[in-house]
Amino acid sequence: MPRRILVIGAGKSATYLLHHLLEESRREDLQITIADKNTEHLPESVAKHERSEIRGLDIGNAEERRAAVQATDLVISMLPPTLHLEVAKDCLAFGKNLITASYISPGMRELDAEVRKKGLVFMNEMGLDPGIDHMSAMQVIDRIKARGGKMLLFESFTGGLVAPESDTNLWNYKFTWNPRNVVLAGQGGAAKFIQEGTYKYIPYHKLFRRTEFLEIQDYGTFEAYANRDSLSYRKAYGLEDALTLYRGTMRRVGFSRAWNIFVQLGMTDDSYRIENSRGMSYREFVNLFLPYSPTDSVELKLRHYLKIDQDDIIWGKLLELHLFDAGRKIRQEDATPAQVLQEILEASWTLGPEEKDMIVMYHKFGYLLNGKKHQLDSNMVVLGEDRRLTAMAKTVGLPVAIGALLILNGKVSQPGAQIPIREEVYQPVLEGLKKQGIAFREYEVPYLGYNPDSVAS
Amino acid sequence: MPRRILVIGAGKSATYLLHHLLEESRREDLQITIADKNTEHLPESVAKHERSEIRGLDIGNAEERRAAVQATDLVISMLPPTLHLEVAKDCLAFGKNLITASYISPGMRELDAEVRKKGLVFMNEMGLDPGIDHMSAMQVIDRIKARGGKMLLFESFTGGLVAPESDTNLWNYKFTWNPRNVVLAGQGGAAKFIQEGTYKYIPYHKLFRRTEFLEIQDYGTFEAYANRDSLSYRKAYGLEDALTLYRGTMRRVGFSRAWNIFVQLGMTDDSYRIENSRGMSYREFVNLFLPYSPTDSVELKLRHYLKIDQDDIIWGKLLELHLFDAGRKIRQEDATPAQVLQEILEASWTLGPEEKDMIVMYHKFGYLLNGKKHQLDSNMVVLGEDRRLTAMAKTVGLPVAIGALLILNGKVSQPGAQIPIREEVYQPVLEGLKKQGIAFREYEVPYLGYNPDSVAS
Repeated sequence: MPRRILVIGAGKSATYLLHHLLEESRREDLQITIADKNTEHLPESVAKHERSEIRGLDIGNAEERRAAVQATDLVISMLPPTLHLEVAKDCLAFGKNLITASYISPGMRELDAEVRKKGLVFMNEMGLDPGIDHMSAMQVIDRIKARGGKMLLFESFTGGLVAPESDTNLWNYKFTWNPRNVVLAGQGGAAKFIQEGTYKYIPYHKLFRRTEFLEIQDYGTFEAYANRDSLSYRKAYGLEDALTLYRGTMRRVGFSRAWNIFVQLGMTDDSYRIENSRGMSYREFVNLFLPYSPTDSVELKLRHYLKIDQDDIIWGKLLELHLFDAGRKIRQEDATPAQVLQEILEASWTLGPEEKDMIVMYHKFGYLLNGKKHQLDSNMVVLGEDRRLTAMAKTVGLPVAIGALLILNGKVSQPGAQIPIREEVYQPVLEGLKKQGIAFREYEVPYLGYNPDSVAS
Repeated sequence: MPRRILVIGAGKSATYLLHHLLEESRREDLQITIADKNTEHLPESVAKHERSEIRGLDIGNAEERRAAVQATDLVISMLPPTLHLEVAKDCLAFGKNLITASYISPGMRELDAEVRKKGLVFMNEMGLDPGIDHMSAMQVIDRIKARGGKMLLFESFTGGLVAPESDTNLWNYKFTWNPRNVVLAGQGGAAKFIQEGTYKYIPYHKLFRRTEFLEIQDYGTFEAYANRDSLSYRKAYGLEDALTLYRGTMRRVGFSRAWNIFVQLGMTDDSYRIENSRGMSYREFVNLFLPYSPTDSVELKLRHYLKIDQDDIIWGKLLELHLFDAGRKIRQEDATPAQVLQEILEASWTLGPEEKDMIVMYHKFGYLLNGKKHQLDSNMVVLGEDRRLTAMAKTVGLPVAIGALLILNGKVSQPGAQIPIREEVYQPVLEGLKKQGIAFREYEVPYLGYNPDSVAS
């Protein structure tokens, strides 16, 4: 009898996951059940595969859900993050293993003791970020430690961008995932990290002016702004003694400086609604955030307010979005500034059908070995194939698929609700990814230049 | 038998209030009961007055509180804003009138129907701001309307500052009221107002760069930044058709530009705690918000980060606060940035025993009369006598005292939970304030120059 895998949620991020599982289905003797409300968009190669079965499922219907979970050997939840917990409870009830690509939630953590007791594996954060970032970082950190090295510095950056050949606008950016997350990025509190043993805090309105540059061979220069909390994996990674911990989001150089214009104007604010936003022109929207003048133009007021020089490329970026157009109208009613901005950006930043996205990841490892400071940089670039077969779907879906087989084959010895930071997990998953062309390149570089012996005040 | 007034809360803001009531106590035949936990600080002239009685009261003790309310004819609550509602419910239960200097809360509004039914008066917002601002504005607005004028513009500004003779620092500012409110001013959402019929929004991080200048005869130039919501009294003031509505907070020119340094650094953030803040030097605190450098000084990093020229007076303002001092230590443990900033400011900005504060208020009224646009500006300046007898205490306490007598003498005909915007209230109170030297000066000025017929886009 084949081993049964239940994939709940068949959205965008499940494409590669399903392809990979079906590809392996004969060799691994798998029967894949794909459960979702809507499954019509699935390609024939998936829907009509001899080893696949489609099942209409309303996730809110507990009876249906439980029946599906009970009838399988392992559950892959590709649902929105807030919905994993219900599925997890069903898995616990029926003694099934579970895997997700989402951040482990407090509710999921609470299940840990019971999951352990039943000898189950609930593997979370098994996508790209979180996921590949953990695994690729831990592989290097463990290797450095095994050689007797002492970690001094860890910085890690990820970006979902557009592939060079599809990079056709001044922002060097198009939406390849959830646009709302991009518009709201960095909000909700100051970014916090450690540099040379000292805490550092960046308020949201300065976040996009405190970027760091990164070079990737063959791909040029990138920049990164800080994530809100760089310290969350400090303990999990065993980096309690590292003097520098920084996590960030990668963009092409110049993006953040231009994005800062929106932040400064207040256009990324999602906390209040603009009355009667529907039918308002893009130009009127911009003018909401500028001082009143009976004579001066919106353009001049903006240039003066934010001190934008006449020949600054930022201006071209704003024009490219038709920001001063009096003819283009906002469609959403009573929208927040952030919602309006998203609408304006989506009109320009949507990936064409044949256009490709790109995932970049960059780690820096600083360490002390035999009394000398060393630095190892490692990075990964993954290109998408088209708007459907994105690098994002690939890097989220493949680790989940590979991880699922690992669990199914009993290769994960430690039970519990966990994340992929142990060798028995990251080693085979990274190996599997390599076979699919997802690999890191490593570079020995001079130590970053921070000087822990003389921290300037 | 004398009329009995119960004053609950005998703090700083009650000084003038008590003085005035006792001064009037014989003529008006009053017996004043002063109820608070701590009353030792009250001067003999109040505590030992033949018409006053001190009563220890724990406001949390419902029985004590109710007994006190039941035994009086009118209650003045000078408690912190959140505590008024319990007192109000007691007043409702025992059929007593009530007066406070605080914003009318949603809970207080809910009592309105019952208050009306019982024919009681619960007068709120009877201090300075809110209070004198309402009354002085409504007096002019009603006068303009009575002459057939149509209101086009209303702007209103208030500031609690230091008197010119006590103005001894580069910031032209000292704390004269609640320092925490000053540090957190403007936070919690974008400032919203209307100019020439168009909504305008200013995000917090731009608030202190969008100031307006104001001249007061004999006192020079002031500036004002926008309050969070300028539209809250639109309906209450009958200004639904006015094209411009703006409320702001006054400071001496240059304050906001320098304050913006704290905002930009993130030092006014009250949303997270700094671990081990106790014993951290002022200099280390500043460095938390600056990029790391093994060689550059905190001073140079700050200058470069916020683009502060070498000869900018802002620098002197920062030095005056000892911001770069490595010897001065923070006392509070695990404090938020805002709490630390407050501590640093209080070390410099505290009023000396003989120093005087100053209250300034400024209104602009734009209106159309007989086809012509007019503008009337009115302003008020009140000086304190010393650190105890402040202009703030005077302008908060006196309207409450005068209003209390008004209610006691049956001069407020309309019952209900209300604010002082009707003529029967503002006329006698403003008259009473004038006798105490608190008066507005009016100036006919050219119309502000906004042009409602050709709103620029």
